[in-house]
Amino acid sequence: MEPYLLTATECLEKFKDGSLTVEAYARSLLARIDQRDSAVKAWAHLDPEYVIEQARALDQIPPEKRGPLHGVSVAVKDIMHTKRMPTQHNSPIYQGDAPEIDAGSVTILKRAGALLIGKSTTTQFASPKDGPPTCNPNDLSRTPGGSSSGSAAAVADFQVAIGLGTQTGGSTVRPGSFNGIYAMKPTWNAITREGHKTYSLTLDTIGFFARSADDLELLAKVFALEDDAPRETEATIPIQRAKFAIVRTVVWPEAGPGTLAAMDIAARLLREHGAEVEAVDLLPEFDEMPRWHHIIMDTEARSAFLPEYRISKEQLQPFITNHVENSTKISRAEQLEAFDRVAALRPKFDKIAEKYTAIITPSVIDEAPLGQKFTGSAAFNALHTPVINVPGFKGENDMPVGLSLVAGRYHDRHLLAVAKEVGKIFESQGGWKRHCHV
Amino acid sequence: MEPYLLTATECLEKFKDGSLTVEAYARSLLARIDQRDSAVKAWAHLDPEYVIEQARALDQIPPEKRGPLHGVSVAVKDIMHTKRMPTQHNSPIYQGDAPEIDAGSVTILKRAGALLIGKSTTTQFASPKDGPPTCNPNDLSRTPGGSSSGSAAAVADFQVAIGLGTQTGGSTVRPGSFNGIYAMKPTWNAITREGHKTYSLTLDTIGFFARSADDLELLAKVFALEDDAPRETEATIPIQRAKFAIVRTVVWPEAGPGTLAAMDIAARLLREHGAEVEAVDLLPEFDEMPRWHHIIMDTEARSAFLPEYRISKEQLQPFITNHVENSTKISRAEQLEAFDRVAALRPKFDKIAEKYTAIITPSVIDEAPLGQKFTGSAAFNALHTPVINVPGFKGENDMPVGLSLVAGRYHDRHLLAVAKEVGKIFESQGGWKRHCHV
Repeated sequence: MEPYLLTATECLEKFKDGSLTVEAYARSLLARIDQRDSAVKAWAHLDPEYVIEQARALDQIPPEKRGPLHGVSVAVKDIMHTKRMPTQHNSPIYQGDAPEIDAGSVTILKRAGALLIGKSTTTQFASPKDGPPTCNPNDLSRTPGGSSSGSAAAVADFQVAIGLGTQTGGSTVRPGSFNGIYAMKPTWNAITREGHKTYSLTLDTIGFFARSADDLELLAKVFALEDDAPRETEATIPIQRAKFAIVRTVVWPEAGPGTLAAMDIAARLLREHGAEVEAVDLLPEFDEMPRWHHIIMDTEARSAFLPEYRISKEQLQPFITNHVENSTKISRAEQLEAFDRVAALRPKFDKIAEKYTAIITPSVIDEAPLGQKFTGSAAFNALHTPVINVPGFKGENDMPVGLSLVAGRYHDRHLLAVAKEVGKIFESQGGWKRHCHV
Repeated sequence: MEPYLLTATECLEKFKDGSLTVEAYARSLLARIDQRDSAVKAWAHLDPEYVIEQARALDQIPPEKRGPLHGVSVAVKDIMHTKRMPTQHNSPIYQGDAPEIDAGSVTILKRAGALLIGKSTTTQFASPKDGPPTCNPNDLSRTPGGSSSGSAAAVADFQVAIGLGTQTGGSTVRPGSFNGIYAMKPTWNAITREGHKTYSLTLDTIGFFARSADDLELLAKVFALEDDAPRETEATIPIQRAKFAIVRTVVWPEAGPGTLAAMDIAARLLREHGAEVEAVDLLPEFDEMPRWHHIIMDTEARSAFLPEYRISKEQLQPFITNHVENSTKISRAEQLEAFDRVAALRPKFDKIAEKYTAIITPSVIDEAPLGQKFTGSAAFNALHTPVINVPGFKGENDMPVGLSLVAGRYHDRHLLAVAKEVGKIFESQGGWKRHCHV
């Protein structure tokens, strides 16, 4: 098997048993990228020499000193600072800007032995706007979703094992679903965002992409995601004793055939495997979440982008200048109301989530649309809960569709254990299979 | 008058009327620093050549193109990134580290025409621990307070007009009081903290030091601090129609003679000037604020310092490694309880604050103690409100003591207007006078 096809967990085994060197793995990935880059366009910056240099240095480390991500390939979203590679935010203001500093997340990955492949494309400053020219590897005429477009597309296209993204609205979960891969947004602030461009302090969260739930678990350990003592003593969650809540959320009226079918099939499959599945309506106050989410995002971006506005407002997308100029005239009173109301809902949501093994909700309204259009927003982001997109379903154009598993805050490891079991079922019986396109 | 004695507002006038060049001002400051630095030790980095280079460039700008802070001297706390100057966090890990990047706040200042003098001393990563060797300019045997030690001491010692600090506990208000200067912590997240070392996402706030309330207002405008429509239509707040609440807070049992006297004198003076002043007890639930504050700080620092821990835990102070290792064994459930309970108190506090022109509380338990000891913490920080330390009082050793004015969130400009009027009274009649020591 070509090394580029390996998941992170698989390549770690081969590095361990000596059947693969990091350099050989790196060369395989670079060849894959060379073959596919003109079609998928997932990279904002990629320097093969730097990749090989890192790979050779990693191969020199004696086995007993290797880190838990020794040699694992990673794409870094281009709003996260990296030494040796520019960080350009898809903004003319930062064209060629390359400060010698690593984001906290990048430091953690490097110390764990990760192999940084390059910087992946993003919408401007990870905004919820039309994306970079990156294409969905499952159908090049369709969007990979944004804002973490490049990381998701590169992982889905076997150009890299792991992708780093961020989520302020649905920037991790959405491209996860559109590309047919696992995507995890951990609990808010469980992982440092230092060195990532800030959009909204209350909403911004790091995100991970991988082609297996095991790979996400690897990352969870490296990033020290730790729950309180687990609810289940078993290492895995037995589906036959699980209880799932189906929460349709406010996106339901807009949901397309792919998402509608996925929700039906998921409930049926889980029941067939012995789980209890019930439809749950959240309290009506949760219906206001999207409105509050928008107010928080708009108003927090007002201070976040003042520096760039002062550098050169002419070079910012109107979407960003509108934030700074508060063009929608949101008052401070409205801003605080949204901030406080969402804060009050968080413990309420946790309490609901506690009653279930996991909550299942749509990841997106439907499969990836044509073009580079941006679609929808995961307003539940403001609840700060962990969310994992599990792939396995498909839309009417055979594009992948995923569903989101959600748990209460700081139940990240629990949710990962659930995602592993649920993922086995969805991936094998959900109707969609991942292909390596050539 | 020596230019180094000027406040920001005063030097701006002289630049405008042509009676002072930025270069002459810079040279005056550098001479003052040269004279005093071995005693006060406020600087972690200072390059006179870079200062002069900036000053000359500023002098070249035609009057009509000058920014609102044209030539105003600023000290930048050494946990904030600056191009051309290292950012070392008082940590051996970052010794000599100088990434070419400006914090968002620094970008805003530079675009406004500020003259960056240097990087000011801090406790390690702005932690609430014993400070750098910086001395209080009012009595060199005493602490300037931390963690923003250098910025506060430099402003108090007339080495610079404006200081940038940060506050997670009381790191701005405390040194403000200890050094006898104005210190402002704006509403949380009203100003971007991008490019500052993160300690606690929920608590970290930028802070400003100045020798006049007018200077703080200058900064408020540059940083686009904007309230909703003001409660008072007048530009200034007439003290004879003002109503103040005296809130003793949970620090009261520990308060020393300086703070006890300041609170008494303040109430008397404000009444003499026609204001209504009433003692207000907050609801008992506010008494738990310090405990929640500590839980939030400890647990959020757990993720904030994981990168440095992975780089070299041996080079971190035990205080920091304890955060990462969660040595106090705070559960996720306790962390969330603290986070949610404080969130629920914020709108309650705002409602109380709305009834008053401002709330007056102690800034510190007393005047600056001997040595470099760290003292106390402003647990009210978690409420996200703006706070301004107004100087004017003194302790039993004739060291300055200030009091804090507090308003509800996003009443920053209102609070500044109050601080200007109250400051006139406290500074002229409170009993302490600022001196330029030689």
